[in-house]
Amino acid sequence: MASTYSMASTSFGANSRFDRQLSRILNHATAIFCEKGYEGASIRDLSRASGLSLAGLYYYFQSKDELLYLIQKHLFTSVMERLKENLKTAADPEKRLRIFISNHLAYFLARPKAMKVLSHEDDVLKGALGAEIRTLKRQYYHCCADLVEELKLTKKLKFKSRAVVLCLFGMMNWIHTWYNPRVDGDAATVAREIGNVFLRGIYASTSGR
Amino acid sequence: MASTYSMASTSFGANSRFDRQLSRILNHATAIFCEKGYEGASIRDLSRASGLSLAGLYYYFQSKDELLYLIQKHLFTSVMERLKENLKTAADPEKRLRIFISNHLAYFLARPKAMKVLSHEDDVLKGALGAEIRTLKRQYYHCCADLVEELKLTKKLKFKSRAVVLCLFGMMNWIHTWYNPRVDGDAATVAREIGNVFLRGIYASTSGR
Repeated sequence: MASTYSMASTSFGANSRFDRQLSRILNHATAIFCEKGYEGASIRDLSRASGLSLAGLYYYFQSKDELLYLIQKHLFTSVMERLKENLKTAADPEKRLRIFISNHLAYFLARPKAMKVLSHEDDVLKGALGAEIRTLKRQYYHCCADLVEELKLTKKLKFKSRAVVLCLFGMMNWIHTWYNPRVDGDAATVAREIGNVFLRGIYASTSGR
Repeated sequence: MASTYSMASTSFGANSRFDRQLSRILNHATAIFCEKGYEGASIRDLSRASGLSLAGLYYYFQSKDELLYLIQKHLFTSVMERLKENLKTAADPEKRLRIFISNHLAYFLARPKAMKVLSHEDDVLKGALGAEIRTLKRQYYHCCADLVEELKLTKKLKFKSRAVVLCLFGMMNWIHTWYNPRVDGDAATVAREIGNVFLRGIYASTSGR
């Protein structure tokens, strides 16, 4: 499957005809949300792009909200699964934080449209669907915050953790506005550069909480 | 005027009735673009929010594109004007870069909706209006890049300037997704923290271009 948005290894399962079709629909929906924004996009746009009828689409999801929910859930779930796999290879706190950065960038630079949808439609979902996404997002944030905390303790660093972790997310997530592989190199190169600025920044910290 | 989006000291001029009304319209438009996204927002929404008729609104601008253009132009122009004023007070390269950071954060944290519109609708405008905004944005980017370059030369640092400057913009601009004044303190506090991570990060750099 040539898609950049494989549903493989998620809780949806990978191999049934239903899952493959849903995966294809979510790809189209991601592209449309990316182009038109969530508010501006319609299920009719998705019908045109996917070649499926409205009735055919509603067999796979119940609402535009659920569509965004499925996209966001898939992204957070699968980037965390990959992270867990990759972290198994390292015990050193600095190396583990570098793995977080390279995992995040490799995953999202391969999915620029998904990255834009995730950052632009971050606060759209309300109610139970929104609460579930916020929980996933918090888990992912804490994966990173825990790694920063581990490093802070090991190296006896002093800084205000929340601001520092959110600086790192800023450096990583803003990249969807500027990344050009011909100018900036591959994900590993950018991950090394961001890791350098960030790690040198916190290693040199001697004050603050 | 209680507005967070004063048009004072821009090229529109500040005091005519036309300018005051335009300023009020741009405030409403910013709030609507923020809430619904550019694609999802309509001039009819703006009419409802501002209490002006469609015909009344089209006296001030010709299209939704021009509305977004006026908002973006005002923001880049006025943040740069303030920056130039603030930079007059310092000659030291590190202090000047810290002024860029605190100017950017003080300006945009006071205008969270404008900040969101600027980052979400960054690539929407095409044609001549889009070209003019891209030029303004490039000027603003180079204000920052020049300050970083000045510091790099003075301190004989080694790093890839483009990646480093864009890391800094990432740290500053991502803030609209997380900033909470009760938890994170005021703009000056956040500017100091971001400045610390960034400056320590580049001061410790010994390799790269």
